[in-house]
Amino acid sequence: MSPGPLDRDDLRERVQKALAAFLSGQAARLDVVSEDLGPVQDALAAFLLDGGKRLRPAFAYWGYRGAGGGDCDEAVSAAGCLELLQACALVHDDVMDGSDTRRGQPAMHRRFASLHRGSGWRGDSEEFGLSAAVLLGDLCLIWADEMLNTSGMAPDALRRAQPVYDEMRVELMAGQYLDLLEQALGGGTVESALRVARYKSAKYTVEKPLHMGAVLAGAGQDVLDGYSGYGLPLGEAFQLRDDVLGVFGDPGQTGKPAGDDLREGKRTALVAMALEAASPAQHAVVRRHLGDPHLSEDGVAQLREVLRSTGALERVERLIDELMDDALTALRSAPVGDEAREVLEQLAVAATARTA
Amino acid sequence: MSPGPLDRDDLRERVQKALAAFLSGQAARLDVVSEDLGPVQDALAAFLLDGGKRLRPAFAYWGYRGAGGGDCDEAVSAAGCLELLQACALVHDDVMDGSDTRRGQPAMHRRFASLHRGSGWRGDSEEFGLSAAVLLGDLCLIWADEMLNTSGMAPDALRRAQPVYDEMRVELMAGQYLDLLEQALGGGTVESALRVARYKSAKYTVEKPLHMGAVLAGAGQDVLDGYSGYGLPLGEAFQLRDDVLGVFGDPGQTGKPAGDDLREGKRTALVAMALEAASPAQHAVVRRHLGDPHLSEDGVAQLREVLRSTGALERVERLIDELMDDALTALRSAPVGDEAREVLEQLAVAATARTA
Repeated sequence: MSPGPLDRDDLRERVQKALAAFLSGQAARLDVVSEDLGPVQDALAAFLLDGGKRLRPAFAYWGYRGAGGGDCDEAVSAAGCLELLQACALVHDDVMDGSDTRRGQPAMHRRFASLHRGSGWRGDSEEFGLSAAVLLGDLCLIWADEMLNTSGMAPDALRRAQPVYDEMRVELMAGQYLDLLEQALGGGTVESALRVARYKSAKYTVEKPLHMGAVLAGAGQDVLDGYSGYGLPLGEAFQLRDDVLGVFGDPGQTGKPAGDDLREGKRTALVAMALEAASPAQHAVVRRHLGDPHLSEDGVAQLREVLRSTGALERVERLIDELMDDALTALRSAPVGDEAREVLEQLAVAATARTA
Repeated sequence: MSPGPLDRDDLRERVQKALAAFLSGQAARLDVVSEDLGPVQDALAAFLLDGGKRLRPAFAYWGYRGAGGGDCDEAVSAAGCLELLQACALVHDDVMDGSDTRRGQPAMHRRFASLHRGSGWRGDSEEFGLSAAVLLGDLCLIWADEMLNTSGMAPDALRRAQPVYDEMRVELMAGQYLDLLEQALGGGTVESALRVARYKSAKYTVEKPLHMGAVLAGAGQDVLDGYSGYGLPLGEAFQLRDDVLGVFGDPGQTGKPAGDDLREGKRTALVAMALEAASPAQHAVVRRHLGDPHLSEDGVAQLREVLRSTGALERVERLIDELMDDALTALRSAPVGDEAREVLEQLAVAATARTA
């Protein structure tokens, strides 16, 4: 079977199947512990099997294929473990941000707060929800390892992947902390915002998944370098696109209420660029509205206007274009197979598209 | 060098050294990401190098030795990784309980809330503290794997240990969730409280560390069974001792304010036993005081009196004695080396001693 351009969708389904199989095995194990763990299983299955974009598994799988790895379900499972890692990041992120929704559904802590409330249990429902979400995130982090280790890939391949996987996870958590600090410092410079994007997204979302796939296939340094040349700028572009969608995106596509990032007061590169160019009056608008949890539709509109009229939005779009050019140029000369190259090009376009 | 009864202390120091070396390697890696990660390094070093009891590494190391594994620093490192796993559990547990202190020091989330406040950063200090503690707990969970995988133990040994390690971690998180549920349900029966103790402590703290050590040494099923016979009752006894110390312990030794477990409203087997035997008046005392965050010294004294006069305290002490008998009887007939048997006996006594 020769893979064509529709492969990405095919892969999405295979990742879905691998996740479903893994989760059903874990559900059986939790059943042995206690039937009271049913809500934990249900919540994680709902979260993980919602049919997301599966971007990180796609980079890992095609990183593997591009480095000469042959198609097999084991590689799909190994790549699929990154969805569990990402689930940990998202569940804990929503706890930290106090977000109400994720992918159009109640965030995990809200889901368990509702369960608590609806069951008439003792104590504070919000505290119960928060605690459950912390534990479920931990469980996802643990399961990610287990899915990788039981993927069926050869022991040698797994041993090569482990350091890359470890570094990816440490960079993720470091990036998350720096992001937290960025908000606490009230948003520094464009440079510091881009540094957060580099660790939180460029390395974690794109470069390291590609590297993980590559070392699973036994790739040499030239392939890793080629993937870095493609993955790092693409990952930054991906984060910048995410920042733009967080402010201007269609709620029906992002799964988050319009302007949610503005209410949370996220200090993105987009915001930093606006502040660099803002007049005193525009500064005042940002100070007044950014991070106001009760921000009205009108406030959202005012902030959007500042992001537009300062030229920040245009500057970000231009930067995305430049980064994409860099990424695709690097990809063209990377020592990878033609089929993978083609899919990676499509993935780059999909990951930074103007619609979510 | 033939190890004597002082070995436990020697091991403690070696675990300390292994942790210090691992953390210093990680600090160097975080420095590369950003100097802003200094507080993260400092906080984790302070937390992990405080010279705790190192109980879980001791069970893992002596589980390994008892199964015929030869003494080596690699085994100490592999065993030491359990301190990082435990650090994750404690840091996240304190977030969930809203605890102020841990081991006589501010809990992790309080530490970062203070850093935020002292630095005059933007936003809510408590939210920053909570977010940082969630991330630092995640980091400990990740580092635990990495310390195990880079311990220098042979790849085959590590491959045998992985499923045991995975099961241990899942049981920990499942036990934590069941504990949460137990509090939310207002404490069910003695049986349900003991079920929580079994997963949260018996398996996670004693049995699985022993098994992990055993499989690292290539042990067969007979050794694993012997360790279960010793470890499961000992682990339950350990949790029951912890419950008693949480109510009656000396704050100077437990590192927690007197009666803290009562203020948190922990639904332990001790409490369940008291409620089983309580008069209506004693029930009323428990209803009024247990879980009151502002509980006075007098309220603590009243609750203690109920736990004593209902015979619950005595019943728990008797149960601890019985469990210890079971554990030591199983240990005597377990197919393990004499030296390890001797140390494991000492460990059992130390883990359930009436002083913390």
